[in-house]
Amino acid sequence: MAIPLRRGLRRAGPDAPAPEQQPSPPAPAAGQEEIRRQNLGAVLRYVHLHGPTSRAELTGRLGLNRSTIGALAGDLAAAGLVTEEVPTTARRAGRPSLVVSPCATRVCATALSIEPRRLRAARIGLGGRILDQRETPRPYGSSPLDAVAPLADLVRGMAGEDGIRYAGGAVAVADTIRDPDGTVRVAGADDALVAALDAELGDARPGRPGFVAGDLADIAALAEHTRGVAAGVDDLLYLHGDRGLSAGIVTGGRLVVGHGGRSGKVGHMVVDPGGRRCGCGSRGCWETEAGTDALLRRAGAAPGTSPLAVLRAAALGDAVARDALHGVAEWLGFGVANLVNVFNPDLVVFGGTLREVYAAGAGTVRRRLDSMALPASREHLQLRAGSLGADAPLIGAAELAFGSLLNDPLHALTAQ
Amino acid sequence: MAIPLRRGLRRAGPDAPAPEQQPSPPAPAAGQEEIRRQNLGAVLRYVHLHGPTSRAELTGRLGLNRSTIGALAGDLAAAGLVTEEVPTTARRAGRPSLVVSPCATRVCATALSIEPRRLRAARIGLGGRILDQRETPRPYGSSPLDAVAPLADLVRGMAGEDGIRYAGGAVAVADTIRDPDGTVRVAGADDALVAALDAELGDARPGRPGFVAGDLADIAALAEHTRGVAAGVDDLLYLHGDRGLSAGIVTGGRLVVGHGGRSGKVGHMVVDPGGRRCGCGSRGCWETEAGTDALLRRAGAAPGTSPLAVLRAAALGDAVARDALHGVAEWLGFGVANLVNVFNPDLVVFGGTLREVYAAGAGTVRRRLDSMALPASREHLQLRAGSLGADAPLIGAAELAFGSLLNDPLHALTAQ
Repeated sequence: MAIPLRRGLRRAGPDAPAPEQQPSPPAPAAGQEEIRRQNLGAVLRYVHLHGPTSRAELTGRLGLNRSTIGALAGDLAAAGLVTEEVPTTARRAGRPSLVVSPCATRVCATALSIEPRRLRAARIGLGGRILDQRETPRPYGSSPLDAVAPLADLVRGMAGEDGIRYAGGAVAVADTIRDPDGTVRVAGADDALVAALDAELGDARPGRPGFVAGDLADIAALAEHTRGVAAGVDDLLYLHGDRGLSAGIVTGGRLVVGHGGRSGKVGHMVVDPGGRRCGCGSRGCWETEAGTDALLRRAGAAPGTSPLAVLRAAALGDAVARDALHGVAEWLGFGVANLVNVFNPDLVVFGGTLREVYAAGAGTVRRRLDSMALPASREHLQLRAGSLGADAPLIGAAELAFGSLLNDPLHALTAQ
Repeated sequence: MAIPLRRGLRRAGPDAPAPEQQPSPPAPAAGQEEIRRQNLGAVLRYVHLHGPTSRAELTGRLGLNRSTIGALAGDLAAAGLVTEEVPTTARRAGRPSLVVSPCATRVCATALSIEPRRLRAARIGLGGRILDQRETPRPYGSSPLDAVAPLADLVRGMAGEDGIRYAGGAVAVADTIRDPDGTVRVAGADDALVAALDAELGDARPGRPGFVAGDLADIAALAEHTRGVAAGVDDLLYLHGDRGLSAGIVTGGRLVVGHGGRSGKVGHMVVDPGGRRCGCGSRGCWETEAGTDALLRRAGAAPGTSPLAVLRAAALGDAVARDALHGVAEWLGFGVANLVNVFNPDLVVFGGTLREVYAAGAGTVRRRLDSMALPASREHLQLRAGSLGADAPLIGAAELAFGSLLNDPLHALTAQ
């Protein structure tokens, strides 16, 4: 179950959802059209997230009656968004309930990622399956805007079959750039990037929906929350490691995005006031102690070495590599403890290069956390490696791109 | 404008709200009754937050037509929740638009606070005005449950007039307790407290709505967000100082509550790994460096001295007091910088004892912040002292208590 829920302050009982406890915006008057739109979206979203589902199950899950579900599924099928089929094995007597499936190969989103070392593009079908995926290296220190032309080439390389309908596109952008001298600049998604992608890729297929941009860690968090290890968890902290560290934070089922979408720069929390100078201009930032570069530095490895090589050496008993892993895992646990005291999530997910670092140093991370975080913040807490692996940013970007279709299935298509 | 809005990941343009970019729960089918309930709530909430408002203005603000507003206001007046009056000065020709006002003295909430040094109770009218307020000292180290009997006495002392209708009650609970030996225990709102308040105060007025409990910093943040300096700001960090430091965090217009409502324990972020031992068992926690006790310690003042005395001495040029203030303000800026990098809010509000500490040391706090936080996290950032003063926890508790009435004006009353 991956459908985000909102929760308010609690009232007697930690699990009693009480959204009514917080002020909410004045409700617009919902008309019949609005109700139909919402219900179409609910059915399409359900099969998008859960795969083929019988009308009978949809009736139960969505709390709508059988004839309403039948009409909604029929409308979605007529719009070419779902198919309806008699199940191959009817298990009960009587007329079997039709199975509603998303049109997984005919309705697609374009998912892009701008990562520190590479650019990726994928075509992802309704239902979340990656149908095609390409990548190309990214020059060190280049800006997100520099990525538009090569990304467009990747996308054009994938385009082929006629009749595919695109629901939109989204790009996941790593939050900072390191210049060759080590200077950290905040990058992230901005208007210029969206405009350039629209201009570059909009030309090829006029009229199709424009691009949406977001922070890579936020988008990967959305993916793990929707389809990964954090499905069903509404309070989670997703930590993404690459050269730096950043976070995607979900509280009460919603992403924390902050001013201009630029929250989650956890790599620049100062954890050691007397520590090493960071490229951002501060000293003792978390990523200078717990990032990939810190692992390589502690292990005496050349910059550019794969962190996996250090982890493998540690696993084989190399003392220097083991010390390096231990030191990085200590600082990883330190920063997680601070964040856990602040957010009190139910789950911390390690993604990107942190998946492997966490897997190798889990005991150290947990011990550090247990010695620092308040009992009320850690007793219920689970730590997990992400389950979507390197695909998380692309899968999350597709979820973002599918957003407007899922919110207004018939009109989003009409607009194409 | 204090009505919380939700925002999704952004699409071209930092201010374009895009809630549709995030997955949302399957929408239930809204019926006519539900629509009416929402609209009644929207009208009542509007006058509750904005005070007397003409029907004409409500029509414009809520996007409903004139006859609908007239019918809704009539229903609310019939239920005794609002009054409708001809304005004393009609400025335009034609029939003047009736002015809708909340029944500020006849419909009330009971607001309680359990603070480190005192217990408070208030009767707060619809519209947010404090009608009556009482307080009593709280014994050092006593538990929230110990507070129930004295709070009930305060409430009974205020009860008097016949015909007042209570919309509910809420209690704001300080998040930690310090035992006489300095040990920090996480306290906060729990089921037992709510049950005890219901048992103690429910007897006196059978059938009235039960209590809601929440963290004091969260509730004070809600107050500043709804009626104070943060009205209209959807991404804010409210820092509450008393003996410790805690936070109420609002992102995208919603409070971050975390697992079991226990987020915001920012006082136990470690800012100085080699620092002083904290009562929580960790070392170098933010509140050991930037809390009231740190100010007294640095100033060489006896525990229990008012921090205001130190601030006054600093203002008068006392060198030791000035150094103490400077040191605390440095650490205050340090922790704020870390949190700002994580959340990227638009506003940081200082409440509780931090109001005065911030006012006295604002320059130092800002300089420290500017040297540590990423430019993208601080350039737009405003720092402010809270505008509701010591009333914030009570005003926020009343907002929480009024929640069910505002969400379902007619049925919440029917239930009484």
